[in-house]
Parts: sequence; C-alpha cells; structure tokens
Amino acid sequence: MWNKEELVFLGCDSDYRDAEIVLFGAPFDSTTSFRPGARFGPSAIRRESDGLETYSPYLDKDLSERKIYDGGDLVLPMGDPAAAIALIRNAEEKAILDGKIPFMVGGEHLVTLGAVEAAAKHCPELMLLHFDAHTDLRDEYLGVRLSHASVIRRCQEILGNGRIFQFGIRSGERSEFEWAAAGHTALHKFDLKGLDETVAALKGKKCYLTVDLDVLDPSVFPGTGTPEPGGVSFTDLMEALHLATEELSLVGCDVVELAPELDHTGASTAVACKIIREMLLNMHS
Amino acid sequence: MWNKEELVFLGCDSDYRDAEIVLFGAPFDSTTSFRPGARFGPSAIRRESDGLETYSPYLDKDLSERKIYDGGDLVLPMGDPAAAIALIRNAEEKAILDGKIPFMVGGEHLVTLGAVEAAAKHCPELMLLHFDAHTDLRDEYLGVRLSHASVIRRCQEILGNGRIFQFGIRSGERSEFEWAAAGHTALHKFDLKGLDETVAALKGKKCYLTVDLDVLDPSVFPGTGTPEPGGVSFTDLMEALHLATEELSLVGCDVVELAPELDHTGASTAVACKIIREMLLNMHS
Amino acid sequence: MWNKEELVFLGCDSDYRDAEIVLFGAPFDSTTSFRPGARFGPSAIRRESDGLETYSPYLDKDLSERKIYDGGDLVLPMGDPAAAIALIRNAEEKAILDGKIPFMVGGEHLVTLGAVEAAAKHCPELMLLHFDAHTDLRDEYLGVRLSHASVIRRCQEILGNGRIFQFGIRSGERSEFEWAAAGHTALHKFDLKGLDETVAALKGKKCYLTVDLDVLDPSVFPGTGTPEPGGVSFTDLMEALHLATEELSLVGCDVVELAPELDHTGASTAVACKIIREMLLNMHS
Amino acid sequence: MWNKEELVFLGCDSDYRDAEIVLFGAPFDSTTSFRPGARFGPSAIRRESDGLETYSPYLDKDLSERKIYDGGDLVLPMGDPAAAIALIRNAEEKAILDGKIPFMVGGEHLVTLGAVEAAAKHCPELMLLHFDAHTDLRDEYLGVRLSHASVIRRCQEILGNGRIFQFGIRSGERSEFEWAAAGHTALHKFDLKGLDETVAALKGKKCYLTVDLDVLDPSVFPGTGTPEPGGVSFTDLMEALHLATEELSLVGCDVVELAPELDHTGASTAVACKIIREMLLNMHS
Amino acid sequence: MWNKEELVFLGCDSDYRDAEIVLFGAPFDSTTSFRPGARFGPSAIRRESDGLETYSPYLDKDLSERKIYDGGDLVLPMGDPAAAIALIRNAEEKAILDGKIPFMVGGEHLVTLGAVEAAAKHCPELMLLHFDAHTDLRDEYLGVRLSHASVIRRCQEILGNGRIFQFGIRSGERSEFEWAAAGHTALHKFDLKGLDETVAALKGKKCYLTVDLDVLDPSVFPGTGTPEPGGVSFTDLMEALHLATEELSLVGCDVVELAPELDHTGASTAVACKIIREMLLNMHS
Amino acid sequence: MWNKEELVFLGCDSDYRDAEIVLFGAPFDSTTSFRPGARFGPSAIRRESDGLETYSPYLDKDLSERKIYDGGDLVLPMGDPAAAIALIRNAEEKAILDGKIPFMVGGEHLVTLGAVEAAAKHCPELMLLHFDAHTDLRDEYLGVRLSHASVIRRCQEILGNGRIFQFGIRSGERSEFEWAAAGHTALHKFDLKGLDETVAALKGKKCYLTVDLDVLDPSVFPGTGTPEPGGVSFTDLMEALHLATEELSLVGCDVVELAPELDHTGASTAVACKIIREMLLNMHS
Repeated sequence: MWNKEELVFLGCDSDYRDAEIVLFGAPFDSTTSFRPGARFGPSAIRRESDGLETYSPYLDKDLSERKIYDGGDLVLPMGDPAAAIALIRNAEEKAILDGKIPFMVGGEHLVTLGAVEAAAKHCPELMLLHFDAHTDLRDEYLGVRLSHASVIRRCQEILGNGRIFQFGIRSGERSEFEWAAAGHTALHKFDLKGLDETVAALKGKKCYLTVDLDVLDPSVFPGTGTPEPGGVSFTDLMEALHLATEELSLVGCDVVELAPELDHTGASTAVACKIIREMLLNMHS
Repeated sequence: MWNKEELVFLGCDSDYRDAEIVLFGAPFDSTTSFRPGARFGPSAIRRESDGLETYSPYLDKDLSERKIYDGGDLVLPMGDPAAAIALIRNAEEKAILDGKIPFMVGGEHLVTLGAVEAAAKHCPELMLLHFDAHTDLRDEYLGVRLSHASVIRRCQEILGNGRIFQFGIRSGERSEFEWAAAGHTALHKFDLKGLDETVAALKGKKCYLTVDLDVLDPSVFPGTGTPEPGGVSFTDLMEALHLATEELSLVGCDVVELAPELDHTGASTAVACKIIREMLLNMHS
Repeated sequence: MWNKEELVFLGCDSDYRDAEIVLFGAPFDSTTSFRPGARFGPSAIRRESDGLETYSPYLDKDLSERKIYDGGDLVLPMGDPAAAIALIRNAEEKAILDGKIPFMVGGEHLVTLGAVEAAAKHCPELMLLHFDAHTDLRDEYLGVRLSHASVIRRCQEILGNGRIFQFGIRSGERSEFEWAAAGHTALHKFDLKGLDETVAALKGKKCYLTVDLDVLDPSVFPGTGTPEPGGVSFTDLMEALHLATEELSLVGCDVVELAPELDHTGASTAVACKIIREMLLNMHS
Repeated sequence: MWNKEELVFLGCDSDYRDAEIVLFGAPFDSTTSFRPGARFGPSAIRRESDGLETYSPYLDKDLSERKIYDGGDLVLPMGDPAAAIALIRNAEEKAILDGKIPFMVGGEHLVTLGAVEAAAKHCPELMLLHFDAHTDLRDEYLGVRLSHASVIRRCQEILGNGRIFQFGIRSGERSEFEWAAAGHTALHKFDLKGLDETVAALKGKKCYLTVDLDVLDPSVFPGTGTPEPGGVSFTDLMEALHLATEELSLVGCDVVELAPELDHTGASTAVACKIIREMLLNMHS
Repeated sequence: MWNKEELVFLGCDSDYRDAEIVLFGAPFDSTTSFRPGARFGPSAIRRESDGLETYSPYLDKDLSERKIYDGGDLVLPMGDPAAAIALIRNAEEKAILDGKIPFMVGGEHLVTLGAVEAAAKHCPELMLLHFDAHTDLRDEYLGVRLSHASVIRRCQEILGNGRIFQFGIRSGERSEFEWAAAGHTALHKFDLKGLDETVAALKGKKCYLTVDLDVLDPSVFPGTGTPEPGGVSFTDLMEALHLATEELSLVGCDVVELAPELDHTGASTAVACKIIREMLLNMHS
Repeated sequence: MWNKEELVFLGCDSDYRDAEIVLFGAPFDSTTSFRPGARFGPSAIRRESDGLETYSPYLDKDLSERKIYDGGDLVLPMGDPAAAIALIRNAEEKAILDGKIPFMVGGEHLVTLGAVEAAAKHCPELMLLHFDAHTDLRDEYLGVRLSHASVIRRCQEILGNGRIFQFGIRSGERSEFEWAAAGHTALHKFDLKGLDETVAALKGKKCYLTVDLDVLDPSVFPGTGTPEPGGVSFTDLMEALHLATEELSLVGCDVVELAPELDHTGASTAVACKIIREMLLNMHS
C-alpha cells in the first residue's frame, strides 16, 4: 500500500549476493580545511538521482541491466580520521573479498585512502588513476597527515613511484609539482591531454580510479569545497570516464567532493549523479 | 557492514503488523496557487529528523516506547488531484481498518480531504479540529473545487454543521468568515484562545486533527507557501497539541504545508519534525 | 483575452481622480552604507501582495472599499540623492495639492526627507511620528549629510523641537541619544511604550507617519539592510499602527527599508505587505 | 508624475491592433514531477528584462523597430491541466485568427500542447521544431497523459509521423528513443548537429518552434526543474535560433521551463530574456 | 592614505599589554555531527560587527571605554580535536597568566573544553554557568569522546559535582537528563527560570560562562548546526547575560555555535555580535 | 600566541616602502542601477583568497616572489560619486608618485574614472585597454553623468580618440556602438579576437588596464550586477590577461564588478581571486 522507500541510488536495488558492484557512501569531511559539506554528498546523490533516467543514450545501456547493490552509508566518526579510514578499509576489503567492485561516494577526498589501502593489499601491482584540480601531495597540512590535501601523498607512500597518474591538476604548491616531477607521480597539468596514452599503458593492469569532481570547471560544478577555475567541461570528463571504464580493469573506484549545499541550484548534484551513472553502466573488473 | 539506510522518521521502524500508528507522506502540491514546494515536506522531515532526539523532556516520553510504522510516501500523480485524493483515501482506510491511527505528512492541505473522507466513512460522528492561518473555506478557486483553498469547505460538505473547529485563523475573504459565522464551522480568529473549552467538549468523541503549520508565525515557520504574519509561537502550538493529543480520541491526523526549500536555514523543517514528534509521543485513539 | 497585468499593490486600482490615497514607490538606496537592496522593496511588495487577501479580519475592512491609486514607482537617479529627494518632494506635493494622502514605499529611509519637505511646506505645524530601530540623528555620515543615517536629523531641522516622536529606538551613537534628550526629539527607547499618550497628544494635529520596518525584531523581519536584534513583534507593530491610523490626521506616510532579496523565504515581504494593507485600510486625513 | 508601471517585456508595448507578435505568459507548472517553479517564469522575464538592452549587436536590430504586444499572463487553474490547455488553445487561436504570431512564455512544457493544437487546426501541414534535453515522448507518467513528460507524444498524435524535429535530446527512457527511431519523430541526440539540413528542408513550410531551455547546459541555465548535464552552450543555441527564425515561417513559438527561483544568481533569467529578445527581433511568419 | 584594515571586532583595538579582555576566535567544527559551519563564526562576527554601534543604550556604556584586545583567530587543525583543544588551552592560559579575561568565540562547543581546562587549572573552585539548548552530557558520540555532544560531560569530569549550572536545556537523551538529575549538574529545563537564584549563589566565586547560542529560539537564531525549536527570546538572553556579567567574577567566557552560512539573511550573525557586545561591555573578573 | 589576522589578499604582505604594486579596494557601488553589491567585492576577495594557492602552475611563478602591499579599502562615501572619485584619484596618484603600480579592486566600474584621471595626469599618452560585456559609453544615465554606464565615455573625454581599446563588448544601445564606430574607441564585439594585434600595437606605450569581470560568461561569473550571456570563458580571459600583462607597460590597472553576495556558491569570487593572482604575478610597469 505505502511506498516504503528504499533509499538507493537510481534503481541500484540488487541483492548484495548477486551484485557485481557495491555502491556505498562515505559521508566524512572532518579534515576539510576550507568549506565543509562533502558529508552531505552521498545522501544528496541518492535523493536527486530521481531526476535522472536509468538509461544512457551515450552508451545505449540501462542501469536495470546491471547488478548493483547500494549498501547505504558507512557510519563514520567526525573528528577521528584514523577511525574513519579504518572503517572504509574494512568495507572496501569485504567487497573485494566477496568478488565485487566497491564504488565509494564521498565525502572529502581523504576517504580514498582507506579504499586504496584495501585495494593495494589485494592487488600489489595496483595502479591509481586520479582526476582532480588539486595535487593533494602535501606531506601534511597544519601538522595533520591524514588530510584531504595529503591523500595522494599517502597513497603514493603505499603504491610507490610509477603507479599514480594524475589529470586535470591546476592547483598546488610549487613544491608539490616539483615532488611529482621528481618521478613520484605522473602529473598531467590543466586538462585531460595524454589520457589516451595513459589508459593504453594501463590496460590489463589492476587499477583504482578516483574522481575528485572539482576537476570540473566551477561553472559546471560549483558545489564543492574548493572550486578552482579553469577546469574541464562535463562532456570532456564524461568521455574520459567512458574511456577509462571501458578499457581498465577496476578493483575499485570513487567519486568525491560533492558538497551539495554549496550549490542550491542542484546542478552540481545532477552532474555527480550523471557521472556516477555513466561509470556504473560501463565499468568492469 | 554497510549501513543500509532505512529512511524512516526518527526511529519509527516498527513493523506494520505491530504498529499503533502508521506514518506516511503525501508529497502532493499540484493545486498550490502561490508558492509550490510542499511536495518536498515528507522527505525533508525524514532526512532532518536525524538532528532531533527521540526523547521529549516536555512529555518525558521516548519514541522508542511507541510502535510506529513509517510507510514511506504515497506515489501521487501531479496534475490529477482527484486521483491523488483517492489514493490517500485508500491508504487511510487501510490503516483504519487494520486498527491503526494514520498520521499523514503533507504536502499541501488538499491532501486532508482524502484522509477525512476515509475517517468520516468509518466514524459517522467525526469531529474535525483544524489549526491554520487560513480559512480554507472557498467554494472554488479559479474554477477548481479540489483546491488547497477549499479543503475545509469540502470537509464541511461531508461532515456538516457543528463538526469543525478552527483555530488561529487570520486570513480569508470576508465571505468565508461570514460563511463560517453562519454556523458552518466554529472559527476562532487569530490565536488559540478557546481551545480548552473546545477540547473539553470534544472529549470522548472521535476526532480528526489537521495541523496546517502556517498557523505558526512566519518568524518561526517561514518555509511554507503562503506565510501569514501574526501567527502563534512554537510553544503555544506545541502546548495546544499536547492538550489535544492528550484529551482527544484520534481517528487520524495530519501535519501539512511544510515547503522546506523555501527556508534554507532548515529551521522550518526542524519545527515540523519536533511538532510531529510531540504528537506521535502523546496521541492515542 | 490575455490578462494584461496591471502591476498594482493588492487591488489598489482606483483612478487617480477618484483616489483618497496615492500609493507610490521610491526605489532608491544609493546612500545605504551597510547592505543595499531597499531599492527592490516597492516592486517586491506589489508582486507578493498576490499572496495576501484584501480583507482584514482584524479591522473587518476590505481594500475594495477604499479608493487607492497605485502610481507605480518614481524613476530616481542612483548616485544623486539631492535629485532623488527633489523628485520625491514634487510627487508628494502634487498628491497633497490634489487633496490626496500620499503613501510612499521605500527604498531606504532617506526618501522620507523629500516627503516631509513637501508635507511641512503645506502644514507648518506638522508633527512626525517615527518608528525605527535606529536614531537616524547623525549630523553626517562620512561627510554625507543626505544619508539614511541622518534623515531624522534633517527632518528636525525643518520641523524644529517638540515635533518629532520616535519609538522602538535601540541603536545609535551615544551623542545621538544625548542630542535627542536635549529636547530635539521625543525619543522612546526599545519598544512602543508611551505610544498611547503620544497619540492622544497628537490627535487633531496634522501628522506625517514614517515606519522603518527594522523597528521589528529581525526574527520577524530579517530582510533589511541593518537588522537590529531586540525589536518589537509583528502584532505589537500592527496594533500600534491600527491606533495611529485610527486617531491621527495624516498628511502623508511611508513604509521603508524592506530589502526583499536579503530574505529569500519571502516572510519579510509578506510582513511589509500586511503592514501596508492594515495602514491603507484604516488611515485618513 | 508617477511612473505608472506597465509590466511588459523589454519595451514590448505596442497596441494589440498594430502588433505583429503577441507575447503572453502561461504560468502553469501543475504537472511538474520533480522541481516546480516554472510558473514564475513569465513574471521573472518581464521584471528582469530591465537589465537587458533592446538593441542586439548580433543582429543589428532593435526591439523598438518591431511591433509587439505583451498581453500579460493567462490565468490558469493549478490542478486542472485540461482546463489550462483549453485556455492556452483559445488565446493562441485568437492571435492566429487576428493575423499575429503568438509567442508564449512558460511555464512547464505541457503548455505547448494547447498552442500546437491551435496552430495545427489552422495549419494542417504544421511542422514542429523542438529544442530540449528530454524526449518528452512518454505515453503517460504515473497514469497522467497530460504531463510535461508526454507533451511531444501528444503533439505527435496531432501532427503524425514526419512532422517533428527534435534537437539536443540527451535524456529519456530507452523505449522513447526507440519509439522516435521507429519513424515517429526525427530525434537528433546530444546537440544541434544537423539543424542546417532540417531548417533547409522546412523552409517555406508553416512551422511551430518550441524551445525548452533545459536544452542548455546546466552551467548556463541551472534555473530549471530538471537540469541535465551535457547540454549546448548559450552561443550555440542563440545561433541556432537566429537560423531558425531567419529561415522558417512561424505560426507560433514558445520558450519554456525557466524556474527562476531555482537560480538565485539571476543568470538563468538573464539567459531566457536574451534568447527571447533574439527570437522576437528575427522571427516572422 | 589607504585604510589598512585591522580586522577586529567592533573597535576592540587596544594593545595586548593594556587590555583587560582578550578576544580570540576558535574556528573549529571538526566534530560537528549534523551541519558544519561554526568554523566561520569568528570571521563573520568581526566582519559584520560593522553594522553595529559601539554604544549600548541598554547599559549606557560604550566599547570605546573598555580596553579589549582582539587577538584574531587561533590556527586549529581540522581533523585533530585533541591538538585543537591543546592550542586553545595554551592561549587561554596565557591570557589568564597575563591577568586578562579571555573571551573565546567559537567554533563548535567542543572548544569550551580547552578553555575550561585552563581556567580550572588556575581556579580550583571554578564554577561553570552554561546556556544551551542541548545537554551536551553524552559520554561519547560514535565512539568519539572529544565531541561537541560530550563537552559538558568532559567539563564535569574536571570540575566534579555541584559546579555546573545549565539553563535553557530542551534536548538530549533521557539518560543525559537522568545523569544530570543524579547530582552531576544543576540542569534547568526549557528556559532561564531560576537564574536569579543561581547567580546569587555564585556571587563572589570564580566562574566560567559558556553561551551556546542555540539556547535562543531558531526564529531568532537559525544560523546554527542544530536548531532546536522552543528556545528563549533575544531579550531574555540579553537580560540574563546582563545579570550574569554584572554579578559574577569571570575567569573566562565564550560564545559558540554561530554557523553564519546557514542563515543568509545575516540576522543570526547580528544577534551574535550584539550578544558579544553586551557581554564585553558589562563583564569583569 | 594568537594569530592576529592581517587581512590581506593572498599573502600580499610587503611593506609599502618595498612594494612594486599597491593593491587596494574601492568598495563603492552607489550608481549601480540594476543589482547592487559590488561594494562587497574587495572584502570578499581578501577573505576567499585563502582557498587559493600563491603559486601559479600556468606561469610557474609564486606571489611570494613579488613585492605587493595590500593597502586595504578606501573609505568612500555612498551617495557622493564625485567625492568617491576624488578619493580614488588621490590614492592612485600617491602610488604613481611613489613609483608603484596601483591595482584597484572594485566596486562598480565608475571607480575606474578616478584611477584613469590620475594615470592620465602623469602619462599624457596613456592608452586604455578595456575588457567588458558592456560599452559603458552612455553620455548620461537618468541625468547622471558619473555613472557606471558612462565611465568609458568619461575616460574618452580625458584621453581622446584612438586611445581606448574595448574587447568582449556585447551589450549597449545602438547609439553607443555607432559612437564608438565613429572613431571614438576601438570596439571589438563579442569576444577577444584581435587582441594580439592590439597588444602588439600598444607595446612600449604606457597603458591602463581595466577588467570588468562581466566580460566573462555568466556561467563562469554569475556574481555581478548585470550578467550578460554569451561571454568569454575563464581560460580565454586568463590567457588574454597573461598576454596583456606580459607585453604592456602598465601605469595602473583594476578588476571590477564582482558582487559576491549574488553568487552564494562562491565560484564568482574564486574566479576573481584567480584572475587577480595571475595579473599580479605577471604585470610590470
């Protein structure tokens, strides 16, 4: 009689057992230093996914054809980043062990660390493909090492040189760019040029894909903590992700840094929903 | 592992079978003539109820002690008020027949019509207690008889004279006030004076209680389609509802006209959540 | 066929010739020093008056029974306060000479100066009744003498001692309070106490009434350039204006300092509309 | 003396008798299923057109050179789509019979149905050129056949195969795309490619032009009920409309789905105003 | 020539050496569990204090007569509550050792812990007067003991029984109310009744005063993370603080939980500024 | 101990004596005719510059390598444009005489007049490079000659024919375009085409550079008084300013018309900050 709501993203209502992909939220933004609110990202994308169709005319695929379990949000303690990362690592590992691809929705970018820890543990040769406006390579921020501004630096400590491929980067300290250039990561400035070659080189290897949505231009995606003008267009990012999800063997992936309350028009949330739909439709392990 | 969200209001997670009260949303605002958005009321109160405790220090009661089933939202067709009212009537009737008290969250005030039709069918002597800023007694609005501006008029056609008790009314056409004064309803202007006597007179009779939250002053509750200055305070309304739910035998009730997007501070939604909590804690059949 | 809109306030569509009252807007805020936006007041009150009824249950009167001409807005040059004041003075004088009561809607409070100049020219014994949070008695502000912060000081220079009665005042420099206390104005602090006596004393004399809506508490009326906590309630102000318009012989009046864009809920505009309706219904010359 | 406002769009103040074009608003959004507010479109474009010049440097034309009557808004009953469509049909037919081109400003997209009914009655060979993000080809939506999501499907039932040309479409159910591809409409996906050929083919035939502004990318036009990322740029749409209005013989046209309150920056309303200006300057029958 | 801005609160520009009071901000909200943004409180109150006069007509005192040093904001690491508390404790202790009264502006309520630690170290008999909507007496929140929801519990562990006096409390878990009632704190429910007696009893003793602004009703102060309807009025709180600052010997005090971005009208920030001004004008050690 | 805030733009904390560049704000918008708020531009860019890095990966330069003094904001009297312009002229002249390049942040565009007056006095052959959506060539606006809509016309009266180069212009009255075409200014319509040639021709000559940020498309920069669709992208403007600051000998420059409150997402302010950073890094005399 009543429509007992199942709060899932856009029809992702498979059973856990059957699912190829496990979607879950990591509503954490406790280390955000500028404008908080990424904690509200996962609930916003579930709620607003109602405005989107399950069918993609770009890919001619429909979410009803995929088996996706939306596991809801992890309960993460604000003010305790280490505990939050451990909870994320456990969730991620559980999905991997059960033969599924975890798809995490942030939350601030620090949440990626827990996921990469789990993925790297099970795939020692893991590669990391990273879309972002910011380097995220600081060794620390105000003395805090578990920070959104340091997350890729922490990942690099796990993965080592030659494993991280960054695109769209247009903001950071000079020393971060220099550290990357010293061979620590392959950092592609400003836009997505060179992605074809990178994807071709990564083909056949196990990859983790992390998408900080602030790689987009703020005109497209103002709803984020640190908007950085000069970013890529929606279509550019969508096509890049079509390519990456088509070609790469993904162990896990995430989409982070939507702060929906910062954009009352709802356009940023709509962008996040559509990016996630296109990734879910096309990705594979 | 994951926290598969059950989107229910403030811990109202009893099974339907055990429940004394059935909460459900009626996300409909298709006849709203001024500022729409009441359709978003039910989902907002569920989401924001997280910011509220289950315990009321006013009543010294806790929602964990009551058996309440949150049935989610009815799926109501925008643009077809008659169909929407029929769906509400059916849901309401189902709950009544199953021995439960239905508690509907609007949505615009028109949704009350479906609920009162069901309640009146099962309780021929039904009384209606009505809190509102507006008379809602127009015979039609732009030729439309199923309108938020006519809902109490339609109820009066079902219940007849001497059955409707209106409080807080401070807006309407002169002819509506005259129509009420001609014996059709007991209309109390401006505030809640006289409620004690009315409640005493209604004691022991079957009642339906409808609360249009715009009875509150816009300083307290700006998030509504037609804010009407000069209303009652939060404490006044809460105490009035403590009294009404304590004393009356309720067949059903509703809380309507929260349009959460009109108040970005969230204060209006917080007010609605707390009013609903206090009613749920205290009401009985 | 089409509904060629006449943009008038709440059914104030009499011909100029027949009108007792001439309503007009003064959309000027060029000297506002803190937060601008009062220029949008007149158009907002016309647009949003749709949400209000023409009938007042408080007064049991209906605007359809009064003859009011809404003359639209004056075209006032931003950046030239002296020219703006001259245009207002001319408009006000025209209405007075034609035997009508001008009712101006601001704009910032400086607009009152043009109106008082005209009224004082035709009523040498003019009294000024002033509701406000602020003294508005500075001799100048950053070297500017035609400023919202100096408007009552300028009026006092025209009217002289013993002619200005201020209520609700709760903000100003110490020197302004001292200047008032030296006999220049009768300044009533904080609230509306003493209004009965003042109105009784003014009865039978020609009065100008100016209402700066920030006399209201910011909870009731946040949509204003300089909200000042600790103000009066809507009901208090409405009753005060019922009294003043009932008892006084008005040569002119105004309602100023609604900055509608500062309150997206619309509640502030609704308050302004209702205050204006109650004044229009009850006022007389 | 006073500036009695005539609320018309950007100097469109010709008499009805002289007018070539009749502009009118259709402030209806009662079937909107996601985010309402298109009802406020017509009044917003009139109010904000003040910020725009009458002269177009793109076309080197000025609105003062055209004869346009702004007839204000139709009064349409919320909650009764059939009645609203009938009122629109009548208005449209009146203009056509009087030898004028009707230009309707929505409101939700359903309003197009009334206009197309009138145009098709008088031009049996009518062609429909349609810009939109969405297919709008559902047979029904929650049982409602008169829905914004079904409007082009309803038009197709009137016009038949081979008569409807859709551009910019990037969202819909798979079955809608298949239904179009089966010969019911000529659906151009994603952008405006192919418009040159379509316009060339339509030259000399009577056409109706409907522009759902959500064909624009949400970065350009977030103020709409269902923003759909991946749309066309402002310049692309403007140039497409320059072409269409230059080449086609228009029986009528409309611009719909501005929901101004969803974009507090005002940029979406400015976009709508400028699109309408460019169309008005260039269109002809 | 240029007006090199000194960003201080409302003319609080004394040298540190001369100052009786040291004002500083604690822009930290990393443990906020519901809606973040209290980090922006200190900068908002400095910026918006421009809209306020230095003179209080309530107290007939002017800030120019007091010696107050505004030390700016502490630099606190998001994501590391223990480090943040230590930094606050050091700053507070420095001021106390230098013979000044520290006045901290939050930030979330957890910041009070660092201040109370410092004050208690130097005043073993310290009393704590606490205004708040919430009990803040949880032992932990999601496993986190350094949480805004636990701050008074932590203070109680330092101060012991009989030392904490809470007013305005209207939200918490039942067990928190019971824990208080067991003698741990003197908890006054709902409003400020009983304050006179408490202040009289505390006279002559060293006190710390903490004001969580959500003790105010959300109509007055919606700009806070967890608005709780049913609170006290602005005038009630101001008068209570007049009394407390008049009578008590303060070792330190704070005003916390303004989240200015949650109330775009600016009214909440104006309330915070005025409360702080009244406290600064009247307080003493 | 405390972090006594120095409110400067992005680390521009050199002493005046050492500085090559003097940054200052001109928070004036008193002649703005449409939507005010540019007065808040300077304080917003200082505050939000925290979200930006001092290092530019585009230029591989860091602000820490330049000597820039941020002189704060001029105190300008609202309502007295002539006085405001005189104050700006004096400040600008002081910096020029001291051998520094003044960099003014508006405020409305009228502030440029004072700066150009000072620069032209010291450089009789001064050239003016102007980026804007609007011609700004009206002789007067509502009788006001000192208006944002007339500022370039006033500059032309000082500089004469052949000295002003306008880019991005897409709005104005026909007569303004004709006046420019008559040889008064070199007006480049719509975009930045032809800038290379203009910059080459200006090389070696003393130039003043004025950037009205509404030259950007409203999708990129909605936070301005009169958004004009069809503008240039962020990257286009940044590259144009890289070129101009690289090649030209600047006597002074300004960036105007950010109205930060009109874009609550903060994206417009972020755009302004980054444009200013890129100019500061690259400019020279």
